Amino acid sequence: MGRKVILTGDRPTGPLHIGHYFGSVKQRVKMQYEYDTYIIIADIQALTDNFQNPAKVRRNVRKLAIDYLSSGIDPKQSHIFIQSMIPEIAELTVLYSNMVTVARLYRNPTTKAEVSHKKNLFGDSGESITYGFLGYPVSQAADLTAFDCEVCPVGEDQVPHLEQAREIVRKFNHIYGDTLKEPKAVLSSHARIKGLDGNEKMGKSLGNAIFLSDDTETVTKKVMAALTDTSKIRKDDPADPDKCMVYYYHKLLENKNIETVCEECKQGKRGCVACKRELIAVMEEFLKPFREKRKYYEENPEIVDEILKAGTLAARRKAKEVMKRVRKSVQIDYFGGKSI
Amino acid sequence: MGRKVILTGDRPTGPLHIGHYFGSVKQRVKMQYEYDTYIIIADIQALTDNFQNPAKVRRNVRKLAIDYLSSGIDPKQSHIFIQSMIPEIAELTVLYSNMVTVARLYRNPTTKAEVSHKKNLFGDSGESITYGFLGYPVSQAADLTAFDCEVCPVGEDQVPHLEQAREIVRKFNHIYGDTLKEPKAVLSSHARIKGLDGNEKMGKSLGNAIFLSDDTETVTKKVMAALTDTSKIRKDDPADPDKCMVYYYHKLLENKNIETVCEECKQGKRGCVACKRELIAVMEEFLKPFREKRKYYEENPEIVDEILKAGTLAARRKAKEVMKRVRKSVQIDYFGGKSI
Repeated sequence: MGRKVILTGDRPTGPLHIGHYFGSVKQRVKMQYEYDTYIIIADIQALTDNFQNPAKVRRNVRKLAIDYLSSGIDPKQSHIFIQSMIPEIAELTVLYSNMVTVARLYRNPTTKAEVSHKKNLFGDSGESITYGFLGYPVSQAADLTAFDCEVCPVGEDQVPHLEQAREIVRKFNHIYGDTLKEPKAVLSSHARIKGLDGNEKMGKSLGNAIFLSDDTETVTKKVMAALTDTSKIRKDDPADPDKCMVYYYHKLLENKNIETVCEECKQGKRGCVACKRELIAVMEEFLKPFREKRKYYEENPEIVDEILKAGTLAARRKAKEVMKRVRKSVQIDYFGGKSI
Repeated sequence: MGRKVILTGDRPTGPLHIGHYFGSVKQRVKMQYEYDTYIIIADIQALTDNFQNPAKVRRNVRKLAIDYLSSGIDPKQSHIFIQSMIPEIAELTVLYSNMVTVARLYRNPTTKAEVSHKKNLFGDSGESITYGFLGYPVSQAADLTAFDCEVCPVGEDQVPHLEQAREIVRKFNHIYGDTLKEPKAVLSSHARIKGLDGNEKMGKSLGNAIFLSDDTETVTKKVMAALTDTSKIRKDDPADPDKCMVYYYHKLLENKNIETVCEECKQGKRGCVACKRELIAVMEEFLKPFREKRKYYEENPEIVDEILKAGTLAARRKAKEVMKRVRKSVQIDYFGGKSI
């Protein structure tokens, strides 16, 4: 009861990769023992830019749950739940819609950036942005407050959304009296993990990611194709590990042999292929516990469903409690404020 | 079961006047025997431009119910319900938000007109319009479809909103398969009733309305101050009944003596005061059955609450049925598609 609530989660649009793991999931695994942890599978938000493809979202819900469970999210500690099964989030979204101007939503830099990446959906200059996509931060404010979330670990790109959520909370509490908890952002330590191709961001759809669900063959292929230090044109040029993605991952995965690897590389004693072979071994060792857990859950999908159901039930219980308070403040608590 | 569904209603922002009665409520009273009738007390929509004053909205919910019941809405025929108690409407609103662009919502002429009347709330040129107010037609689409409404009696100014709702339904059905019923507008016969001051519209806040709840003293005062034919400057000028609001109401209330009244006026045999006295008598006779019913419900508020509860229960039952269908189409019917 005394523990603070933390809310994190992802949109079920594809498998998690090691960028997600180091960027946020690893931190969640730790935090679940300190906080009352809610993990949202944000299918309603996934629909805002996948509304034409509900099957994709559906397919990824259980997959995402398995990714979490394989990563060490403990269903005894964390409530993993499905957003669409919590109607209170929609009810809060509608109420919060009055707390924010359209102009303010347009000024959100994250919305702007995302719209510019989705030209096929929202037009070349975002002229066809949907009402739903513009309201993304309103919906996130509902997610956070529906569970009295006080701490929200986010990547840098999510900071504007969280700031908007906090504004909504303050306005709501100002008008209706102290009702909602104001969530605080905690920046993830590894805000962004680089891709195998050297891109600043490992991305689901960028073709530069190692997924937590990748098998040995796939990992091997991907690592063998990773970007090494391309400034090392001739064999005897000094290599710069800072420009080499293979070195980057040796470091990320905490290869104990890293000093030697690095030294041998610089001296030209170790070629890139050997270096990559060693990274593959380290990566395989790293992925081993994930794969063991994954195997169990994939063979027992009914257990995953039970976990999702229990998590959603717990989340609903909490959201109902918050909604009861909100109804009282907004004076829409008819018939004793209970659902009828 | 075989009867088509009709949805009508009002925002609980003030008492109903005879303009509402002749403009829409009278028609609803008739239609309730032909259609499966849902009457929405749209408190969530009332909040879009009264979000700073929830007490006003709350206060008017039961009052509006009493206005309906006094007007002949029969709770055995019609389901009078409170919008905020139907979470499915919020859930549909959120899903429909992806079916419409922000640009399309801005083009809605009714939204434009209403924003221009609310400068203190939304700024001189509407620059501070809230996300919620812009989304009004999305929310109306949710109201209509949540009950499989097929027929929607509207005033002319509501036609653009209904057209937008129909677009949303068509897009939704196109993407997710045939799921929603497309509501049709039926224009109210008396689209607008003039005010006592000769204004083209009798309005709650225009100071030119006779409310269904006005007592004898108030009716007398208001009618005595009504605009007569001001072009009749000298006593012996010919009066033009078409310019006289008193004549207009004699006609509206179907005074059987109207030929005589009109003739005597034109001949200068009957002065305006006498004419108004007669109108007061006609108005009092007209309001008598309203007052009798009102007295009963005001003395028995618990009966009003029971009616609202039963109506809301019936509405919820229907909305759940529709939502179950929607969940299946959008593939968000987890855990057997039941609420958990």
